[in-house]
Amino acid sequence: MLPRIRAGANRNRNRNRVTVAFLGLGHMGAAMAGRLVDAGEQLAVWNRTPAKAVPLVARGARETATPQAAIADADVVFSSLMDDGSVTALFDPAGPAFTAFQPGAVHVSLTTVSPECADGLQAAHERRGVAFVSGPVVGRPDTAAAGTLVQFLAGDPQGMKRIEPLCAKLARHIVHIPGSAGAANRQKLCVNFFVIAVIEAMAESLTLAERCGASRELVLGLFDQSFASPAFKGYARRLYDRDTSGDGGFSLRAGNKDLQLILSEARRAGCPLELGELIAEKMCVALARRMGDCDWSAIAEISRERAGLPA
Amino acid sequence: MLPRIRAGANRNRNRNRVTVAFLGLGHMGAAMAGRLVDAGEQLAVWNRTPAKAVPLVARGARETATPQAAIADADVVFSSLMDDGSVTALFDPAGPAFTAFQPGAVHVSLTTVSPECADGLQAAHERRGVAFVSGPVVGRPDTAAAGTLVQFLAGDPQGMKRIEPLCAKLARHIVHIPGSAGAANRQKLCVNFFVIAVIEAMAESLTLAERCGASRELVLGLFDQSFASPAFKGYARRLYDRDTSGDGGFSLRAGNKDLQLILSEARRAGCPLELGELIAEKMCVALARRMGDCDWSAIAEISRERAGLPA
Repeated sequence: MLPRIRAGANRNRNRNRVTVAFLGLGHMGAAMAGRLVDAGEQLAVWNRTPAKAVPLVARGARETATPQAAIADADVVFSSLMDDGSVTALFDPAGPAFTAFQPGAVHVSLTTVSPECADGLQAAHERRGVAFVSGPVVGRPDTAAAGTLVQFLAGDPQGMKRIEPLCAKLARHIVHIPGSAGAANRQKLCVNFFVIAVIEAMAESLTLAERCGASRELVLGLFDQSFASPAFKGYARRLYDRDTSGDGGFSLRAGNKDLQLILSEARRAGCPLELGELIAEKMCVALARRMGDCDWSAIAEISRERAGLPA
Repeated sequence: MLPRIRAGANRNRNRNRVTVAFLGLGHMGAAMAGRLVDAGEQLAVWNRTPAKAVPLVARGARETATPQAAIADADVVFSSLMDDGSVTALFDPAGPAFTAFQPGAVHVSLTTVSPECADGLQAAHERRGVAFVSGPVVGRPDTAAAGTLVQFLAGDPQGMKRIEPLCAKLARHIVHIPGSAGAANRQKLCVNFFVIAVIEAMAESLTLAERCGASRELVLGLFDQSFASPAFKGYARRLYDRDTSGDGGFSLRAGNKDLQLILSEARRAGCPLELGELIAEKMCVALARRMGDCDWSAIAEISRERAGLPA
């Protein structure tokens, strides 16, 4: 890690170093900008609400009054905003921020936006000779502060190469996604879907336990044990390989029996189990397809079928 | 582990040792009976289809022609059957198996049956002076063969004490559940619900990735990384503690934005995302409750509310 430098102190002595702008200092943005400034990068920061910049300025960043002031002399511009709306508003092709980019600069968009939004930005930047890279990150603010994010990168190939040393200060794992910028966002969305889906699975499990009089504490212990055990990893591999064989495992027929017991117990206890009902419907279809001897994870085939994926 | 003994060879020399019957030799039953016979237990086995007993007899078990023949001289009877129907049929209070139990014997039911079924069996056995313990196990046949199951025990307290040394040959972790026999089944059902719910989460994530053109392989890698990371453990603790605070985390408002992007992408790609829609509805309700600044895992509160649990 480079030594920490004071605001602007080394600017003239480091002409060969890149100048970095960081726009958007929310929970995630502030943590990532903090990593860069602590690593000694020459960082200009801007946020819609100026107060957010105060701790970063104390650590050596330079605050600008407008985004274009930060962008204008930056080799690399990171933006960490809220959503499609805030991104397209700030980088409106007719606006002052967008036209402030130096030709040859790289814009790294860290925001989780739609793939279409990212692709649109890449095209607009290209027309002005600016390289656009979509680099959404996986992790929460504490992970960002520790520099241990996972980052997906897609977009301008030259731009990606140039920003990677900087991204390495933010993420412990950088994954290049082939395709246009939006491909990184697409991959990021799959991650967030999985995370919220597991949260829902845990939430309904705890609700079921409490409502039917089982121990919430044991269920919590089970979460930790399950994540640490090879079981989920085994199921993940089965699903990826589309291995539906029931040999030596837990059959869909037996799994359906258990799920029916779970739903009976939930109904008896007065506990709606929405995810349970959803899975039961898929099991029912799978049984109708004569998949009773398959592994119970073969319900994945019903999702695939409904999505029109090849059998 | 005790030395392996030949079929019946040591029966007269070990009068003080318990005699064990094992009924039901499906994937799980055969693996567990194998653990007991390899540990040197005097094991009588029975299965509806006799062929299943052959490998166990080769390892030293004694096969009986009827369940009652195995039960009649057993101190401890394990049963590993299919469901409520097969359990209540075999242990019909008027039937030959049920009346064959020695007074003072212990019956350990390993089958995942309904809590009511387990409680009914406990009461029926008690009336004949037989101790009943419900001992459903968590794990797949390979885990059973390795003796590393997790087992929940509930029911007759004296019976539980007596069978624990035997159960320790099957499970690496034995959890006593207070209450009647059915309490163990209730806890087991919560486990199985969580497992199938996470399977569904993984299945829909992989389907989404494939359908929208993201990398399935990266999603598989993400599963493994997520299970190993502290993130899910952190969410589990938050849900258990009902900590909905949004400080320094990922707000429900931002999470909802991401979920809407996920659903748009899924619809664009022609991918039904049933679990995603279910979660979106809960996020919508949570936002209407002005929970936008909470952590996105606060959707759990909506499940609780719908189940009539205290706010």
